[in-house]
Amino acid sequence: MKVTVHRKAHFNAAHRLYNKDWSDYKNEAVVGKCNNPHFHGHNYELIVSVKGEIDPITGYVMDMKILKDLIKTEVEDAFDHKNLNLQVPEFKDLNPTAENIAVVIWNKLEAQLKDNLELTITLYETPRNFVTYNGKD
Amino acid sequence: MKVTVHRKAHFNAAHRLYNKDWSDYKNEAVVGKCNNPHFHGHNYELIVSVKGEIDPITGYVMDMKILKDLIKTEVEDAFDHKNLNLQVPEFKDLNPTAENIAVVIWNKLEAQLKDNLELTITLYETPRNFVTYNGKD
Amino acid sequence: MKVTVHRKAHFNAAHRLYNKDWSDYKNEAVVGKCNNPHFHGHNYELIVSVKGEIDPITGYVMDMKILKDLIKTEVEDAFDHKNLNLQVPEFKDLNPTAENIAVVIWNKLEAQLKDNLELTITLYETPRNFVTYNGKD
Amino acid sequence: MKVTVHRKAHFNAAHRLYNKDWSDYKNEAVVGKCNNPHFHGHNYELIVSVKGEIDPITGYVMDMKILKDLIKTEVEDAFDHKNLNLQVPEFKDLNPTAENIAVVIWNKLEAQLKDNLELTITLYETPRNFVTYNGKD
Amino acid sequence: MKVTVHRKAHFNAAHRLYNKDWSDYKNEAVVGKCNNPHFHGHNYELIVSVKGEIDPITGYVMDMKILKDLIKTEVEDAFDHKNLNLQVPEFKDLNPTAENIAVVIWNKLEAQLKDNLELTITLYETPRNFVTYNGKD
Amino acid sequence: MKVTVHRKAHFNAAHRLYNKDWSDYKNEAVVGKCNNPHFHGHNYELIVSVKGEIDPITGYVMDMKILKDLIKTEVEDAFDHKNLNLQVPEFKDLNPTAENIAVVIWNKLEAQLKDNLELTITLYETPRNFVTYNGKD
Repeated sequence: MKVTVHRKAHFNAAHRLYNKDWSDYKNEAVVGKCNNPHFHGHNYELIVSVKGEIDPITGYVMDMKILKDLIKTEVEDAFDHKNLNLQVPEFKDLNPTAENIAVVIWNKLEAQLKDNLELTITLYETPRNFVTYNGKD
Repeated sequence: MKVTVHRKAHFNAAHRLYNKDWSDYKNEAVVGKCNNPHFHGHNYELIVSVKGEIDPITGYVMDMKILKDLIKTEVEDAFDHKNLNLQVPEFKDLNPTAENIAVVIWNKLEAQLKDNLELTITLYETPRNFVTYNGKD
Repeated sequence: MKVTVHRKAHFNAAHRLYNKDWSDYKNEAVVGKCNNPHFHGHNYELIVSVKGEIDPITGYVMDMKILKDLIKTEVEDAFDHKNLNLQVPEFKDLNPTAENIAVVIWNKLEAQLKDNLELTITLYETPRNFVTYNGKD
Repeated sequence: MKVTVHRKAHFNAAHRLYNKDWSDYKNEAVVGKCNNPHFHGHNYELIVSVKGEIDPITGYVMDMKILKDLIKTEVEDAFDHKNLNLQVPEFKDLNPTAENIAVVIWNKLEAQLKDNLELTITLYETPRNFVTYNGKD
Repeated sequence: MKVTVHRKAHFNAAHRLYNKDWSDYKNEAVVGKCNNPHFHGHNYELIVSVKGEIDPITGYVMDMKILKDLIKTEVEDAFDHKNLNLQVPEFKDLNPTAENIAVVIWNKLEAQLKDNLELTITLYETPRNFVTYNGKD
Repeated sequence: MKVTVHRKAHFNAAHRLYNKDWSDYKNEAVVGKCNNPHFHGHNYELIVSVKGEIDPITGYVMDMKILKDLIKTEVEDAFDHKNLNLQVPEFKDLNPTAENIAVVIWNKLEAQLKDNLELTITLYETPRNFVTYNGKD
């Protein structure tokens, strides 16, 4: 029997959505105001969920201090107060939509977790728009 | 690999719960104060969740502006500031419980979504009572 | 030196805004969709704030159990799952706007509080619209 | 087709995390500040989720008043304003981590629910740390 | 006797904090990561509060539709999805701190309100940092 | 013209309410379940509000990093994961009600702030009960 533990975190960043292979006109038409070439930004709220067996010795699925530190190293230090398009290498050729940011975060954290743990990422771009990704079909 | 995008919306409405085949006494006994014949009401908070592949061109599962407009047309314009029992045809013979409202909203939105997208409805009747429906068993 | 203690509560109700001295046309023009003759409704969230000296014996400004019971008797029992226009006497000739509901609640609770306590009412009609009233100019 | 109904509740409690088979030194090293022998505490926020078919007569998956009363009897009366380590029998030999508390609550409520209903427990230890348990692998 | 009505709104924007008369070194030392020359951003949540007498005819302090439209014209259209430093004239020579943004919003809305209404602005830069301004000492 | 800046923080603690000069019977009668001799606990959420002039050079009322560090040193390090009755000297002879905790926090922070700044403390004992204190009558 497995339990899922969830940890909240957050970071602030600027971004711009656009497709470099499109004309300015097409970007404006498809992306709308999120295409502002001077950037806009968000307070991203993140929920990292890890599912696994409870360790009978500690009563933990995973030590939350370790998870908290992992989120700090892999996500907060990399993204917080950054311009995602210009300063975060993963988005050099990838549109920093909420969907793509969630996938990038999942890939970074998954690489650091033990194989018997299942990871889900929930990312709020605003309090009204959010995405979920668990690496599955 | 699929991502789920979520969009929040809301509407206010009046409703009354009762079974027209029951006596007033039985309605009062089963439904309690929600059976008030003069109606009561709620601020319904809605989360519409759509799961699908990320479009590699746009970085979107679905354009959130299209989803926002769809929710406005199908849900907000139909339900907001209405009396669900008296003014919304779907509830003419269907008790407007949170469960049934969620199923009605799911059916309306599902009919408008592409076949490769999976829909889940979360509906808060109050901050303490809410329901989830995804059209599956 | 005075401390303010705050207690949250809630009730659900139906209402309709209109002025009985106006034509239907004028009500529709001024009040808009809140004028729906079949009513709509809200989850009202209430914060009752009481300011006073800390009792050095108990460490309380006021026993929160007493305040909780007072809110139940004066507000929840009177308003919850009611149609404010039809079933709450205070709104027989008074438009149940958030402003007027807050004043009515303040008057009911103020009458029950000791004279050395100062009362403020905060009433959320929706998570996006709320009012505050403290009986002062 | 099944719908899930969710009900929120809460309780406040003190607890201490430690392993009685470990030295003080090892408990301090592994558990950190949660090992404080004088206890610390939390406002636990609980979401009880019950999945089942909608009853076509009532429009309910389950009468929320019955679920509310069940949560009161099995969880609130047993845990609220208690010291989990010293006053709740289930934690006499079980570390009261959020994971273990969620499993204990699931076991208590599952025993009271009809067999055709599926139960999930979500327990917030703080607004930033929470766990989910549904009795499945 | 006066009531205060409150309306929530929001906008997303990029900004950068720096003093153009300082060296890069001093800006970095004083402002820290908020000085990122590539900008970062926030979801700004805004509460506009207006205090005044209840109109006995309508039961309103102020028609919330008018207030909502005013916030849209003066704040959302001007700031949403913008780079505050580069695209909003008020911040050409003014550091877009939360404090200064609140004062700018207050000045814009105050100019549009009737003289007998008192205005307070609450601006959340993040869920953990916010400011309040009412034009008084 | 002055602006108020607000910063949120939190700490978890155990406490017990009782008057050492009262009999067990009287404590039970007056304090009820909060008198549990084995303690219970809360997640305390804190809002520290500081009012002052905007510094025209920085655009700040007060550097939020300094305020954040001050809250950490004076409040979080002193109270977090502690038993307030047994491990926090200020409550050796003072009942740790929310009212008294707010006054203690105000006194600790006020002593560290410049004289031209005005301080208000808001302390949530639970999401439903909270207190405010500003050192004034």
